[in-house]
Amino acid sequence: MTDPMPTAREMEFLLHDWLRVADLASREAYAHADRETIGQTLDLARALAADRFWPHFAKADAEEPRVGNGRVRLVPEAADAIAAFRDAGFFGMSFAAEDGGLALPWVVTQAVCTLFSAANQATFAYPFLTIAAANLLKVFGTDAQKRLYMQPMIEGRFFGTMCLSEPHAGSSLADIRTRAVPAGDGTYRLKGTKMWISGGEHELAPNIVHLVLARIEGAPAGVKGISLFAVPRYRLDADGNPGEANGVTLAGLNHKMGYRGTVNTLLNFGEDADCIGTLVGEEHRGLFAMFHMMNEARLGVGLSAAAQACAGYRISLDYARERTQGRPVDAKDPAAPPVPIIAHADVRRMLLAQKAYAEGGLALGLWLARLIDEQKTAEDRAERARLTGLLDLLTPVMKAWTSHYGLEANFWAIQILGGAGYTRDFPVEQLYRDNRLNPIHEGTNGIQAIDLLGRKLGLRDGADWRELGKLVRATAKRAEGGGLADLGAALAAAMDTADRVAVTLAKRGAAQGAGAMLANAWDFLRLAGHTVIAWVWLEQALVARASMDESAGGATYLQGKIAAARWFFAHELPFVEAWAAMLAAGDAPHLDIPDDGF
Amino acid sequence: MTDPMPTAREMEFLLHDWLRVADLASREAYAHADRETIGQTLDLARALAADRFWPHFAKADAEEPRVGNGRVRLVPEAADAIAAFRDAGFFGMSFAAEDGGLALPWVVTQAVCTLFSAANQATFAYPFLTIAAANLLKVFGTDAQKRLYMQPMIEGRFFGTMCLSEPHAGSSLADIRTRAVPAGDGTYRLKGTKMWISGGEHELAPNIVHLVLARIEGAPAGVKGISLFAVPRYRLDADGNPGEANGVTLAGLNHKMGYRGTVNTLLNFGEDADCIGTLVGEEHRGLFAMFHMMNEARLGVGLSAAAQACAGYRISLDYARERTQGRPVDAKDPAAPPVPIIAHADVRRMLLAQKAYAEGGLALGLWLARLIDEQKTAEDRAERARLTGLLDLLTPVMKAWTSHYGLEANFWAIQILGGAGYTRDFPVEQLYRDNRLNPIHEGTNGIQAIDLLGRKLGLRDGADWRELGKLVRATAKRAEGGGLADLGAALAAAMDTADRVAVTLAKRGAAQGAGAMLANAWDFLRLAGHTVIAWVWLEQALVARASMDESAGGATYLQGKIAAARWFFAHELPFVEAWAAMLAAGDAPHLDIPDDGF
Repeated sequence: MTDPMPTAREMEFLLHDWLRVADLASREAYAHADRETIGQTLDLARALAADRFWPHFAKADAEEPRVGNGRVRLVPEAADAIAAFRDAGFFGMSFAAEDGGLALPWVVTQAVCTLFSAANQATFAYPFLTIAAANLLKVFGTDAQKRLYMQPMIEGRFFGTMCLSEPHAGSSLADIRTRAVPAGDGTYRLKGTKMWISGGEHELAPNIVHLVLARIEGAPAGVKGISLFAVPRYRLDADGNPGEANGVTLAGLNHKMGYRGTVNTLLNFGEDADCIGTLVGEEHRGLFAMFHMMNEARLGVGLSAAAQACAGYRISLDYARERTQGRPVDAKDPAAPPVPIIAHADVRRMLLAQKAYAEGGLALGLWLARLIDEQKTAEDRAERARLTGLLDLLTPVMKAWTSHYGLEANFWAIQILGGAGYTRDFPVEQLYRDNRLNPIHEGTNGIQAIDLLGRKLGLRDGADWRELGKLVRATAKRAEGGGLADLGAALAAAMDTADRVAVTLAKRGAAQGAGAMLANAWDFLRLAGHTVIAWVWLEQALVARASMDESAGGATYLQGKIAAARWFFAHELPFVEAWAAMLAAGDAPHLDIPDDGF
Repeated sequence: MTDPMPTAREMEFLLHDWLRVADLASREAYAHADRETIGQTLDLARALAADRFWPHFAKADAEEPRVGNGRVRLVPEAADAIAAFRDAGFFGMSFAAEDGGLALPWVVTQAVCTLFSAANQATFAYPFLTIAAANLLKVFGTDAQKRLYMQPMIEGRFFGTMCLSEPHAGSSLADIRTRAVPAGDGTYRLKGTKMWISGGEHELAPNIVHLVLARIEGAPAGVKGISLFAVPRYRLDADGNPGEANGVTLAGLNHKMGYRGTVNTLLNFGEDADCIGTLVGEEHRGLFAMFHMMNEARLGVGLSAAAQACAGYRISLDYARERTQGRPVDAKDPAAPPVPIIAHADVRRMLLAQKAYAEGGLALGLWLARLIDEQKTAEDRAERARLTGLLDLLTPVMKAWTSHYGLEANFWAIQILGGAGYTRDFPVEQLYRDNRLNPIHEGTNGIQAIDLLGRKLGLRDGADWRELGKLVRATAKRAEGGGLADLGAALAAAMDTADRVAVTLAKRGAAQGAGAMLANAWDFLRLAGHTVIAWVWLEQALVARASMDESAGGATYLQGKIAAARWFFAHELPFVEAWAAMLAAGDAPHLDIPDDGF
């Protein structure tokens, strides 16, 4: 079967032709990340994804994690795949050489992640979480935490988790109850129960370091009284090796619809034995620190959703080229041989819709990753603030838009395969089940919509939104001379509409309160998301158009890019006006009825 | 846990307040179907659905059918449930008393089906298919076929299937290869392989009668050379009892994403032993006969999708009322107790969206079922033709719109439950998996779109479409005086738009051929579907409004109906203009690129 990762040509186009990531080598931190190094890294990642992750994609689902003798058992292929990932140095791919990392630009590491996500997100989740935890410790950890926990994570020896939710507190972190009591020696004793912990217990590594939100006794109520702690599964001995157990016990596994290869746990801290943790960052500022990991995870969720959408696209494209069925609507001679279903208009529509959603989300995700590189290495303070603002603004869009439409892409992948797509003989049904998690975790899409409209839009007096508008309009303007003037005009009009709606909603909020402003927040997120995705498609189309003029080779691939852009503009962008009209009207019948009217 | 069926109040409202189904008792065929009889039937169905079908909903999924000792084993609860269904006489609920049936109006039987579909579609599929097969034999069977096969089906002793697809021929029935050779005694010998046969093998009944499409040797190519045969699993002895095997063998089971309780099989006919079949209807007219069953199945698929959407709605509503989390956006005091999540705007939006999709589809399905009753009992030939035309036109809309948006409703049900909704501890993830089949089977939704735009719209020179417009505009007009003038105006405008688009597309077809007309057929189906669903919502809102004036009791339920109508008009109907603009522009970038441009 076809391997499901975005093709090498696709990565080449996004990373080099469009994002020119090799230019980052001019910055000291990435000095050695030339095009050849990047190419070798992606080649190696692609080979590992194809040979070690993809082959057990279905098996890790069919044989989901189980508890045996108090231990969580995964399919053995998962450990093999992760060992190969570790041997390639990929746990440390984004870390500086001084930390033992490969010092690759973030955008390159995210392209690498995309390949593994497409091949087997459930197995890839273990390294993904570990890298995110190490990144958090890099920023907020003490020297000791870096040495004892971060370093082994970068080497792939210890794994990491994020422990936020509790059984009674999922989305509402303000209500967590896990307590941390100072032990007098600088450490804390933790006590409480954490829910939905991915990778919370397994035998893939000799230790797991949990990053746990808890309240220090006497802390203020709400999110301003939450602190963050590093809590190893096994305490470390004098040499930093895992020793005795640290009072973290497995209370149960969650059995999910998909994403099954990633064990999801209910954990008790300090129930039967002392559970020792150390403070990460400042007291009561735990959510601030955790959001460093969370924002990374939100962008990662979006990128993973796009990767899984790409996977469904590639598999259904392959099927559409091979499977014969029926005849063109204009040529119904029953004696004629049947045609490959890619000949049918509606199949082509389902393919191009998938391409538009999947590669649109992928492009936005990689563009944002490049922004992170620019932000990290920016020397000018104002420039850094500008980039931070764009990232703040677009993180909820990337998370929610891409997880919503990435799943829609997988819907169409199944539809192309028909009855076959509905069986477990083909991977598209699993992709659809796996990808269904992405609109939920790391902040539901409803919460992302509130974050965008209720918080991000107004930050810095709307400067980030205006900055986005500037970028979008600059692209629209370039399109005038790039042979895509019609798309440029449509994009500029959509951005004008989005601006107008943003002003209307801000005024509504000022006059009637947050409740009135946020009544239809999800529509605003979709409106903003469609505008942004149209923008990245126009960017891609402009590059494709220019490349066609430059070279004769590979023109069909570039035609496909322009067609996907045109499809998105013709078949999706018009919804922006519909959402704008709805938001301007402000109808909210869901708020107008009593609870028992439902 | 809440039972998942549409409430008694909901059925009361649709069947009596709106559709006035007891009025059908004025027609001779339904003379005894007074309101009390209907009520007793629904009460009994509701009790059986809750007590016998719903309790093994999850178990039938977790323990999917397996083959042991050459036999298909289902969970025992399925047989118990179906026995109770049989004992209630429900296999014969739609059949005349002279056939041993309950002689209930079709609309009442479809309401009964909705209850079972919502409770456990996978188990209900066995009786559903059997009833559809008996209905086909009632119309097309010989006297002998009626006596030997239909009669035991009505009694729930024999079960039925429909055998259309083959491994190489799914959507394209023109290409089936199963052969039928006349044996000289009026019977035929069948030989071939059939794929995707639901209920193809099991031990629920002593016999299964397969309705099989096959080619008589020498038949013309394509769909005009297909005949239909009744093929029992066991031949009948002189007394009509199942005797020796009839050469139908199980070649394998398909393992599906959902809908797992319904065994889905690959069957060989006449491979090792003679397989004897008898012709149903005329030679080479098999597809015509099969479409009788297929149209019933298409409407049934739509109604089942709506029922499953209703189930997700009820379960997520229950959860939203119980689960506390967070605080209103305007009141963030962390010391205040958390509120039930039904207080959050986005949760209310997800609830009302589900209600709009689910009850909109349910209402359309029951309205169409009532149309079937009118059509069956119409004395005037022109009136019968008018009703047949409306049914022809709206069958693809009911099938495709409702299966698409019913699944979307289930998406939001999961989203309300969040992480819990993603686990197998709650039924919403299974509903989402089960309901995913409905856009695929009985003709994919892409095929429904082509059927609507390429065939149904032009039948009888567009008279059926004009008839639909008349009905829609009459309702819009009634709304002027009914306090819902704004909705009436919006509906009339949508219908005008739909008319305009239909003309544009017809002209495009005439000028440029079917390929150009059908390039974006799916958009047209959604446009038509949204207009029709807006119409049934305005119908419901008018009834609700009138009932509120009449009575003081139960007003919150009626407010909910009006709110759902307003939600659909405010948040969904505006897409009609967007689709219309797309269809008028006629952009089809998916047709413009070479195959390897994808």
